[in-house]
Parts: sequence; C-alpha cells; structure tokens
Amino acid sequence: MKLPGKIAIMGGGSWATAIAKIVLAQAGTINWYMRRDDRIEDFKRLGHNPAYLTSVRFNIKCINFSSDINKVVRESDTLIFVTPSPYLKAHLKKLKTKLKDKFIVTAIKGIVPDENMIISDYFHKMYDVPEENIAVLAGPCHAEEVALERLSYLTVGCKDIEKAKMFARQLSGQYIKTSVNTDVAGIEYASVLKNVYAIAAGICSGLKYGDNFQAVLVSNALQEMNRFLDTVHPVDRCTNDSAYLGDLLVTSYSNFSRNRVFGTMIGKGYSVKSAQIEMEMIAEGYYGTKCIKELNKHLHVNMPIVDAVYNILYERISPMIEIKLLTDSFR
Amino acid sequence: MKLPGKIAIMGGGSWATAIAKIVLAQAGTINWYMRRDDRIEDFKRLGHNPAYLTSVRFNIKCINFSSDINKVVRESDTLIFVTPSPYLKAHLKKLKTKLKDKFIVTAIKGIVPDENMIISDYFHKMYDVPEENIAVLAGPCHAEEVALERLSYLTVGCKDIEKAKMFARQLSGQYIKTSVNTDVAGIEYASVLKNVYAIAAGICSGLKYGDNFQAVLVSNALQEMNRFLDTVHPVDRCTNDSAYLGDLLVTSYSNFSRNRVFGTMIGKGYSVKSAQIEMEMIAEGYYGTKCIKELNKHLHVNMPIVDAVYNILYERISPMIEIKLLTDSFR
Repeated sequence: MKLPGKIAIMGGGSWATAIAKIVLAQAGTINWYMRRDDRIEDFKRLGHNPAYLTSVRFNIKCINFSSDINKVVRESDTLIFVTPSPYLKAHLKKLKTKLKDKFIVTAIKGIVPDENMIISDYFHKMYDVPEENIAVLAGPCHAEEVALERLSYLTVGCKDIEKAKMFARQLSGQYIKTSVNTDVAGIEYASVLKNVYAIAAGICSGLKYGDNFQAVLVSNALQEMNRFLDTVHPVDRCTNDSAYLGDLLVTSYSNFSRNRVFGTMIGKGYSVKSAQIEMEMIAEGYYGTKCIKELNKHLHVNMPIVDAVYNILYERISPMIEIKLLTDSFR
Repeated sequence: MKLPGKIAIMGGGSWATAIAKIVLAQAGTINWYMRRDDRIEDFKRLGHNPAYLTSVRFNIKCINFSSDINKVVRESDTLIFVTPSPYLKAHLKKLKTKLKDKFIVTAIKGIVPDENMIISDYFHKMYDVPEENIAVLAGPCHAEEVALERLSYLTVGCKDIEKAKMFARQLSGQYIKTSVNTDVAGIEYASVLKNVYAIAAGICSGLKYGDNFQAVLVSNALQEMNRFLDTVHPVDRCTNDSAYLGDLLVTSYSNFSRNRVFGTMIGKGYSVKSAQIEMEMIAEGYYGTKCIKELNKHLHVNMPIVDAVYNILYERISPMIEIKLLTDSFR
C-alpha cells in the first residue's frame, strides 16, 4: 500500500472542488471521479468546475477526470470520498473493484441513510476496509473560504495516528493548517450533529429569536453533542477542539452554511419541500436529523434539540410551538 | 436583611437601563442612581433614558432617581452595580454609607483597574461585604435585545445558592429565563476574558480572516479560558454552560458587541486612541486585557490570545504580525 500514493477525489461538488485545490497545491496530479460526463467536458473546456466554486482555476493537465468509478479506484491509492451522503450508496453500487487495499478518506459530513451508519463504519463493514486504513477529514472549513485562500484548519482523524499525520502533511500548506486525532467516529457523529444544530439555529433565526438566544442554543447544542458522543463512542476527547466546537460554530453562525439557510426558511414558514426546491441544494442535516433520531431510539440520550428539529421537519409540528417548548429545557 | 427588598440600579448606561426594565417587570418601584443630574432631568421629562436604549419607555412614577449615591444606598436593600469597571472606584469614593448589610449584585463585566481585582473580591475585601451577600449577574445578554424583548437567559452566581435563586426569581419573566450557579469568581473572570476574546475576533475580522478562522479562534479561546479558570479559581464547572460559552459567543459573534467593533477597527489599522474617539464608548476589554495580562504574570497560564491582544493594544505591535504568530499556536 502506497501512502498517500495517487490521490483521487470522489465527487464533484463544492467541497470536492475545494479539496482538489488543496491537494493539488502539493500533489503533481490527481484522479477525479465525477458522475456526469457533460460536467467533465465543461470542466476541461472552462478550466474550472462549471457548477461549483467557479472562481477556482485548475491546470487541467494535472487532472485525470473520469466518470468510471472502477477505473478511478483501480488507478488510485488514496480515495477521498466527498459526495453528499444520500448518494454514496448509489455511487458505490457501480463498484466492482475492491476497496480493502486502499486508503479511504471520508470528507462526507453525513450518515448513510437507511443503514444509519457513519461513513467510516460503512466502508469498514460493507467493503472490508480495515479501520486503520480509514480516515475522516473534518474542518471548520467552508469550501467558499478555501476558494478565497482564507486561513483554515482541518483535522484528520484515523485510528492509525501515523497515517493521519501522513495524510495531514499532504494537505498542509500556505492557507491550510492541520491537526490529527484518533477519534474517527466521534468526529463523524459531531459533523452530522452540527448540521442538525445549524438547522435549529436557522429555524430560530427565521422565527426572529436574537443573538442572545442563539448563543444559548449553541451552548446547549455543544452539551447535547457531548452527551451523545459520550454514549455512542465513549473515549477521552475534548469537544472544545476545533474539529467539534469549531465545526459547530462555523456551521451555525456562517452565512455560507446551507443547513442554516435551510433552517431559516423553515423558521420563516416554508415547507421542507419548497425550501429544498428554492435552495437547489441538499441540506445534509435534513437526513442527519432522521438518522440521529433513529439511532437515539436505542441510545436514549437526552437530545431536546434533535427532537425539536425532527418534529418540525418530519412531524410537521409548528416551528413556533416546538422551539417555544425547547426554550424551557435550556439553561 | 430584606431580600431582595428595595432594589437599586447603580449606573446609567445601556445595560443598566436594560436591567431596570427587567426588574420593573416585577418590582413595583426601584431606586436608580445616576451620576448626572441633567440626565436624570431629561429621563424624567422624556420618559426614557436620553442616551441609551431610547426606545424603552418607563413609567417615571415607579422610579426614584437620585445622583446622591449615599441616599440611594441608604434607601435600598439590593444594589445592582452596573457602571463601567474603570469608573466604579470613583463612584464608591463618594460613599459614606456602609455596604456590608446590603445584598450586592455586580453586573459589571470587568476588573477594577490598578487593583486587578474582580468586582466581587473588591466589594468583599474593600467594603467588608460577606461573600454570601455578593452575587454576579451574567448573560449572554446584549442590552439591545432586552430592549426588543427577545428571549434571553441570565445566570445569577452567588456562594449562597438560595440567595441566587431568590434574586433569579426576581428577574425571571416573559422574555427572561434564569439559572443559578455558585461559581462567582469563575463567571466574573469569564466575563472579563470574553471581552478580550471579542476584541481578538474583531481584530481578525478587520484583518480579513474569514468565518473558518473565527470558529478556530473561538474554540481556542474557550480552551484558553478553561486553562485560566482552572488555575485562578479551581472548582468543578462546565464552561459549556451559557454563562461561559454562551457569553463568549454572543460577544464574539454579535454586531451589538462593542468589544468586537473596537477590535475590528484596530484590525483595520486604527490606533487605540482613534478607535476610542470614533466609538464614543468604552470597550471594557481594553482594560480587561491589561488586568488579565498582569494577573497572569503570577499565574503563568498559557494564554496566547490574551498575549497577542495585549501586544497589539499596549505594545503597538502590528496586528498582522501578531495574529500571524497566533495562528501557529492554534489547533
């Protein structure tokens, strides 16, 4: 196994494009899997992703594009998966090549729907990838700011800390700083939860709750996250680190956050369907909410914020009523 | 000692005005000490504070104004001090009445300059007020949002938890929720530190660092706060509670935050003097930075953010250089 060896980006969205930019700052060439051939053709012709982060120019000679997932997997050593979580299964279904000898990095902030499994578990259990060959890439890191080359911090989590360090070195650069961690599952769950909490922050903002309340909401969200992580994956961790709290903050407070924008629309009275149509983008937290709610049926963690968001999104309970109830549980 | 008995507001700024509004929602009448007689006259004539939160109307018949601090102290049982910290000593110098039989609440978010003492210590050591009769009132609570009656959470800290509860009940209402705590010193230091961190957040924003970095800064600020509190006042506390993290968030992220605005101007290249003139307001964190820096000379806590803000504000080191160095210490 060559590490990182040849690196492939698996996905064509904005975060995939940002990661490609980061990786290409050091790697000479990359492989890049995208589902749609027309997008690949446009990308080659324009010199940038036609649909996302269009301001980021690429040297096309350094990129081997392909819409054939098997070809890309065969020709690569490190695969960075960065599709929206609801589409991952469909992509992997096409796979005939084995993954177990690859170094798998998940930059997907979500859970595999139906299975209710975090991505690292999914690769480990369904594709026999050993845990020490699976890493998670987390940030407080909006793709839009990577495009602007604004200083950002990424965390690489891997059970094998040496592999985490190796991959982190591959990413570090002029405007990217990295740290490493062994808490793969904790980071993954945290990144799912923070999307749910960003939806909650948006809902409250849409309902005209102010900054004072947002601060209380986020503080209580961090406490709820701690309770869940301590139950689902009890290891010694500091959730004040930027991979947990930082990621929660950037998603809850930033105007770049899709989940927050989605929540704001819900708070203002849009239906889930009309908010999704209006945004033309998936708010991952919508699916994350259901997954966490179902996981928690067995874990019984006290999660008033997840419960409230679930009731609003899936049970069609009025945001006004649901958030009013939620305020009584805070301190 | 009657608790809360007759309540007095000591100070005439925006936070004082917000607290008066909160207290008057339950108390029939209050005493209100303001330094300037002309302000009192204007207040009576207009029916609102002439200088701060002018949208908040008061029933003047319920307020006994006075510029005589001794008269107000004599006629009150609970004194809520809410002057800017640099002016507290000057106000108290005029005092001939004893404070030791009063219930003292400090809503001052600062340290007494020169003495480098938190307010509760100052009242205890200089005015013989027993610790169990001293409470601290902490937010995440911008006065401007109290004026708008937006839901806000206050924390009352007092060594005597029953007295904290009693006073908290006095504040709770339609748009104010309260919790209690015994960690008076911790809450006070946290509220000083958060102003310093809000200046740092402003400086970075002025220097065009983005949301990704702000999230990392605030995460590291919370870690730095934890290190300081665990050294200066080691008790069992959860700094993810809204009195600590929430207050840090609202001050660092809100546009209502004077300290953040002050920092932004510094980051953009204003001198301290010109930023202060432009703002026509005191950013408490300016004084807090010096106090914490001096306290820490004996405590030796690793505080890279406080050090950086101190170097920028007091040693005139370029914000660009100082923040660049700071970024290397983060994770």
